[in-house]
Amino acid sequence: MKKALTVGEALESVLRVAPALPPEDVPCLEAVGRILQEEVRADADYPPFDKSLMDGYAVIAADVAAAPRKLRVLEEIAAGSDPARLRPLQPACASRIMTGAPLPPASDAVLIVEDSEPVPGDPGAVLAKAAVRSGDNVARRGGDARRGEVLLSPGDLLGPAEIGVLAACGRTRARVGRRPSLAVLATGDELVEPDRSPSPGRIRNSNGPLLLALARQAGATVRDLGIVGDRREALGAAIERGLEGDILALSGGVSMGAYDLVGETLRSLGVEILFDRVAIKPGRPFTFGTRDRTLVFGCPGNPVSTYVIFQVFGRPAIRKMIGFADPSPAPVRGILRGAVRQRPGRTGYYQTRARLSEGGCVAEILPTSGSADFVSCARGNALAVVPAEVASMQSGDAIDILLLEDFADR
Amino acid sequence: MKKALTVGEALESVLRVAPALPPEDVPCLEAVGRILQEEVRADADYPPFDKSLMDGYAVIAADVAAAPRKLRVLEEIAAGSDPARLRPLQPACASRIMTGAPLPPASDAVLIVEDSEPVPGDPGAVLAKAAVRSGDNVARRGGDARRGEVLLSPGDLLGPAEIGVLAACGRTRARVGRRPSLAVLATGDELVEPDRSPSPGRIRNSNGPLLLALARQAGATVRDLGIVGDRREALGAAIERGLEGDILALSGGVSMGAYDLVGETLRSLGVEILFDRVAIKPGRPFTFGTRDRTLVFGCPGNPVSTYVIFQVFGRPAIRKMIGFADPSPAPVRGILRGAVRQRPGRTGYYQTRARLSEGGCVAEILPTSGSADFVSCARGNALAVVPAEVASMQSGDAIDILLLEDFADR
Repeated sequence: MKKALTVGEALESVLRVAPALPPEDVPCLEAVGRILQEEVRADADYPPFDKSLMDGYAVIAADVAAAPRKLRVLEEIAAGSDPARLRPLQPACASRIMTGAPLPPASDAVLIVEDSEPVPGDPGAVLAKAAVRSGDNVARRGGDARRGEVLLSPGDLLGPAEIGVLAACGRTRARVGRRPSLAVLATGDELVEPDRSPSPGRIRNSNGPLLLALARQAGATVRDLGIVGDRREALGAAIERGLEGDILALSGGVSMGAYDLVGETLRSLGVEILFDRVAIKPGRPFTFGTRDRTLVFGCPGNPVSTYVIFQVFGRPAIRKMIGFADPSPAPVRGILRGAVRQRPGRTGYYQTRARLSEGGCVAEILPTSGSADFVSCARGNALAVVPAEVASMQSGDAIDILLLEDFADR
Repeated sequence: MKKALTVGEALESVLRVAPALPPEDVPCLEAVGRILQEEVRADADYPPFDKSLMDGYAVIAADVAAAPRKLRVLEEIAAGSDPARLRPLQPACASRIMTGAPLPPASDAVLIVEDSEPVPGDPGAVLAKAAVRSGDNVARRGGDARRGEVLLSPGDLLGPAEIGVLAACGRTRARVGRRPSLAVLATGDELVEPDRSPSPGRIRNSNGPLLLALARQAGATVRDLGIVGDRREALGAAIERGLEGDILALSGGVSMGAYDLVGETLRSLGVEILFDRVAIKPGRPFTFGTRDRTLVFGCPGNPVSTYVIFQVFGRPAIRKMIGFADPSPAPVRGILRGAVRQRPGRTGYYQTRARLSEGGCVAEILPTSGSADFVSCARGNALAVVPAEVASMQSGDAIDILLLEDFADR
């Protein structure tokens, strides 16, 4: 057994071997939440013509430098009109224009309809009640983007606004990083499936569903391999199935007990174990290895350990595989509410409820009864991080806070 | 036409008529990101028995108050063992125990394996090298949750940790608020589908894909009704199809132009228009109405207006329908970087890049060329909110920031 790595060393080791997966083309709507793997340039000037931003009258601004001013109306310009067919404005003339319509030649401003009124007895004229300046209510050709300008780059996270940009540029599909496939296998003779009633001494498999949900939320596609007991042959067969995908996440079987067969079975199947102890609390017996391009996460059997290990190591690995430029977002610096005491030697991760206040991010550490306390995870939206060398922190101390994905939602 | 409402009045009006949709039962893994609509209680004590948190030896702590101490080993207890079949500990005795295994009767602590060593020549004994205290490395029955205790409540957002809690309690399905169905219809003679090359004076429909992506990200299921031109009959038929779902989102056709038929067509189809002007910039001509239980959002044709209107009004409506207890999260208070100037009278929403620093949330307002600048939305992760009565704000001023959903991801 190797020496325990620090959290930083372990994370570096995981990210070094996690491959960025080859890209795939998907329909734009399916690309939301994924990472672009191509450059997208404006295929034309945007807007492609000088365009009215309001309903009103296209005018020559110099004509309407003072108001009121009577103008002769040449025509009515709807959105979608061909700019080449519009009548050029003459001095003291205007054309009725709709939002989104192209400006006629010689026009350089739009008088909004609210600032106009009809001229009694002269249906071919309009009265400008307010002065306009050149450029008022007009979007200039190329003002948003110039033809050829880079609008989106490899590594960009695609949200709804990016989908709008892609559509504007004529794209219905986007090239994005492929999602890794992740298989979850829960190990242990004590486990029964969630729909069963455990006999005395046994418990339901909650780590499996937890890992499936964590992995899917982080961006993986998931496969449930169910439960396997502490028997070499069955364990080996199940692990072999899991090694077919990009990631295998196991829970249990990585402690020092006589039945903790996971590490040994992984080795016998050709998995290279990169480390099997990390100076982290909870989660010390976290085991990590690779076979070919498949990553193997051996998480401890305790739900809170599994949760922390996944958030600290699994999520960054998935983000790297998907193509995030920054797979492992740095913790934010915030203010501790409540106190922490720990035995120095391992970096501590604490279930936390973080909220933003005017003075910064406030982290309230949640009470827990220990590393098997699956209920405490459900109340948090962040993990507070206490360095390995620190024995205690007080309310008001600055503290690192790892925000989890649903932070903005809670 | 009615008077423009304030943003607060308009949001209140939207949320008042947005119905919380009836719940549905879904498989737990599909419930991630949704809102629970039932109470979930612990179906047993958790843990259901006194349980070892480590691999080592179950002991009577009083026996090992001082070390070293030689103990006789009674048996080996694997995880999953039936507690009723275990041999009660006698003084000066221990049982080998694995992580997750039940403690034998009379035992009240676990000596970790690292603190033990074999006794040479006596394979039936073990040497405790360190003292233990009662409760060390033991999770007490009911320590995490008591049978009948409420673990999850209606209104809870289901993340991975909650899925773990559900599994632990024997649940494979969860009762959650139904997702609303939302249809998107883009209107305007100037529009062509994104896969087409626009002829002069026309542009591609980017608002439709934008709204589809926004709505899906907010939690709706979406339906694309494509583009309809500014003709009464076709518009009416398309709107009628959109009114079949829970929400119809239109873009365009709500300004004051001669071809802005949306409001009039909605009325003719029996939609009650609750308001058609909001004191917001961008997005003033936002039109909102209902027919039976269907909500109708008439968004302006400009992409940035559509984006802002959806984030400020559409997303809270969807969140209420899904069952969020707090459908409209309050903006956080942060610090402005850069300056803003606006004409007082309308609440201003500005595309913003927000980040967390030690002193709080910092909002950098992004440059934009106007309300048609679809590129600016793609660079932000938040909207800075400037009150209607404020004409200018300076760098360093406190400012309200509306965090958007992918805030933690960028």
